[in-house]
Amino acid sequence: MSDVKIVLPESEIPRQWYNIMADLPAPPKPPLHPATKQPLQPQDLAPLFPMALIEQEASGQRWVDIPEEILNIYRLWRPTPLYRARRLEEALGTPAKIYFKYEGVSPAGSHKPNTAVVQAYYNKREGVRRLSTETGAGQWGSALSLACRLFGLECTVYMVKISYQQKPYRRSLMQVWGAEVIASPSDRTEAGRRILAENPDSLGSLGIAISEAVEDAATHDDTKYALGSVLNHVLLHQTVIGLEAKKQLALVGDYPDVVIGCHGGGSNFGGLAFPFVADRIAGRDVRAVAVEPAACPSLTRGPAAYDFGDTAQMTPLLYMNTLGHRFMPPGIHAGGLRYHGAAPLVSHAYELGLIEAKAYPQRSVFQAALQFARTEGLLPAPESAHAVRAAIDEALAAKEEGKPRTILFGLSGHGHFDLAAYDAYLSGQLEDYELPDEIIQRALAELPRV
Amino acid sequence: MSDVKIVLPESEIPRQWYNIMADLPAPPKPPLHPATKQPLQPQDLAPLFPMALIEQEASGQRWVDIPEEILNIYRLWRPTPLYRARRLEEALGTPAKIYFKYEGVSPAGSHKPNTAVVQAYYNKREGVRRLSTETGAGQWGSALSLACRLFGLECTVYMVKISYQQKPYRRSLMQVWGAEVIASPSDRTEAGRRILAENPDSLGSLGIAISEAVEDAATHDDTKYALGSVLNHVLLHQTVIGLEAKKQLALVGDYPDVVIGCHGGGSNFGGLAFPFVADRIAGRDVRAVAVEPAACPSLTRGPAAYDFGDTAQMTPLLYMNTLGHRFMPPGIHAGGLRYHGAAPLVSHAYELGLIEAKAYPQRSVFQAALQFARTEGLLPAPESAHAVRAAIDEALAAKEEGKPRTILFGLSGHGHFDLAAYDAYLSGQLEDYELPDEIIQRALAELPRV
Repeated sequence: MSDVKIVLPESEIPRQWYNIMADLPAPPKPPLHPATKQPLQPQDLAPLFPMALIEQEASGQRWVDIPEEILNIYRLWRPTPLYRARRLEEALGTPAKIYFKYEGVSPAGSHKPNTAVVQAYYNKREGVRRLSTETGAGQWGSALSLACRLFGLECTVYMVKISYQQKPYRRSLMQVWGAEVIASPSDRTEAGRRILAENPDSLGSLGIAISEAVEDAATHDDTKYALGSVLNHVLLHQTVIGLEAKKQLALVGDYPDVVIGCHGGGSNFGGLAFPFVADRIAGRDVRAVAVEPAACPSLTRGPAAYDFGDTAQMTPLLYMNTLGHRFMPPGIHAGGLRYHGAAPLVSHAYELGLIEAKAYPQRSVFQAALQFARTEGLLPAPESAHAVRAAIDEALAAKEEGKPRTILFGLSGHGHFDLAAYDAYLSGQLEDYELPDEIIQRALAELPRV
Repeated sequence: MSDVKIVLPESEIPRQWYNIMADLPAPPKPPLHPATKQPLQPQDLAPLFPMALIEQEASGQRWVDIPEEILNIYRLWRPTPLYRARRLEEALGTPAKIYFKYEGVSPAGSHKPNTAVVQAYYNKREGVRRLSTETGAGQWGSALSLACRLFGLECTVYMVKISYQQKPYRRSLMQVWGAEVIASPSDRTEAGRRILAENPDSLGSLGIAISEAVEDAATHDDTKYALGSVLNHVLLHQTVIGLEAKKQLALVGDYPDVVIGCHGGGSNFGGLAFPFVADRIAGRDVRAVAVEPAACPSLTRGPAAYDFGDTAQMTPLLYMNTLGHRFMPPGIHAGGLRYHGAAPLVSHAYELGLIEAKAYPQRSVFQAALQFARTEGLLPAPESAHAVRAAIDEALAAKEEGKPRTILFGLSGHGHFDLAAYDAYLSGQLEDYELPDEIIQRALAELPRV
């Protein structure tokens, strides 16, 4: 048997990130100022982000150099392995080849540190003392806690209260790395106090936590804000995933027919898929599929529109596929995919027909995760399991057609923090949610007028 | 900066395990039959183990071929990375070089699958249908569950009841991989029923769970037993760790002055250290240090004596450093190190002066774990953190002396399943246990007469 893992030496970590902005056949609509509704100017973002990231956010440059200091940190876990899922192929009896890129080897167990360390680095370089951010299930918060620690920054994480209470372990992980973790809504911010006044028992939401973290940064001179997905610069940093995967496939003389990533805010999907979408734009025959939960289907059921990134309407307006900033997704176990909007770059690529999107209910996702864990050994995070589901379905379609197909999917994180979810699935307590159209319509009725 | 990770290609996975038995200057004392007290014959073990493993247990052959089927499974996570801990070195201001071998990339997050898959393979080959085993915190049970699944065997895990109740996540992990998990003591076995009759509220112990698993295997024709540490063949399989580490160090032209591993039953320590102890026997100047918890100090405070491996006195008598088979260690958080005995091969090497041993209380261990996590990013399992503590102390000693020193330690697993322990440490709830000599003496009074 030939290689199962395709491993790159450290010298092959990409030295540049790929910016899809340079290759899009039409430019995306610009972000707007939340008050004036005019296109956002760089200085509008200065209270929240360091200049280097603001420049990346608006950059049209195809390749962006990765600083040496970041490469040194990336070396702690990168290059990540690319696997050929031979045992899964055999179990499926498919003529397809299945490859997966595994980001679970990072210290936080997911792809999130790829951008967290970059954001911490640029903030540190511009004299920032502290970063604030939000987290739902804790993946992003733990990644930023680690990154801040590695660069000597303080870190304040507003953690959605229900997760803070129900998932103490991720909270502990952030504290191990030295972060201050605050249950949101909190009395630390105006936004939090307003929510608590309305509803003292509020269990919080990602939208509320974002409002708190943004306000914290905007009201403290030495503090800036960090976001774990959605924005252009975040997707840019994550392209290190797809660029590495391409090199690894080239080592074995292969190239995918289809690239599959789970999709919440878009950073994992964009990071894996955009380097391949670039080839598609250049005329190559490669598909890219974003996989989202049926309970939070921003791409498959949300229209493209200008919307806020947070509940308190403090962020810029982004043009994106959205379920509305007041949308509250059901409590599915893929917490990292419970965001109302899709990254503007992903939304734009979708509108241009460069990518496809697909939604699955959670039980079929866990079923796929189990089949994967029982053949390949690795336990997928519930988020990543969405990509596993779609990859298995592609492989089964290839079997049906009796034709080979080369599939690449992203295993964005391991599920060692998510065993409560597996426990619920195994004991038959996991529910699929039907998301009635009227709930989406109600949330969309609150879209801002632009 | 040069390499942080030293990565081997899959083609460099060792093709043979190393058997230290061949090189020991004097042979260890043989295991004895528990009833006759005569040296154990291979057929005595036949109800528990397949012949291939019984042969390995008694083998004096220096190199044992790794079957191709095992190499194919090892490829799922091996070779594991060797790291140079440059950021930790810098934080300590030490002239020492610190390397660590990281086994946390396996699907179960620890080194345990290295032998679990081998044991499952040989059992499958000899027509066994089911394996029974015990587990404390769950590392071994999850590794064997995975291994059984990969080879199509059924798996029954007797899990110490207190862990079964307090650590539902490891239980879920075993179930994800398809194992049946039973809280021990149970009414499934004579041994379990006897304990429950004496004390219906018994929370169990590793010794009791071993008795149950052994009885299950001994009383079912299609079932055999698997042990995760202590025995010669288990240590043999784990030498893949040290053999790889040696190759990786050679790639950067280095060799350790000291090799450090945490020590519970001895499989992690032996697996990492024995390939280097071989060089020491051949005259090379290399130290090996086994690090154990002060709360369960089998090497540093237990005498070498014949003792049972389990509470119900069903196993053969092994000559080993032991705290007595009735010893109940305090409830420290390094559950994988709470075993009363040390592997006979480790005990023998200790007696011969080939290795050193050291014990630490748990708070100083967690303090080291935090320092490591905050510099190198990776979160150590509480067991592995014992080696981190000793490695830091070696590096500080080098600093004190103003002399360089090359340190290699084993990071045998990640701590993503152990955040409750970190939480307890961070909130100041972790206690150090003084282990009074009289408790040890009382347990030792029950050693069998041979």
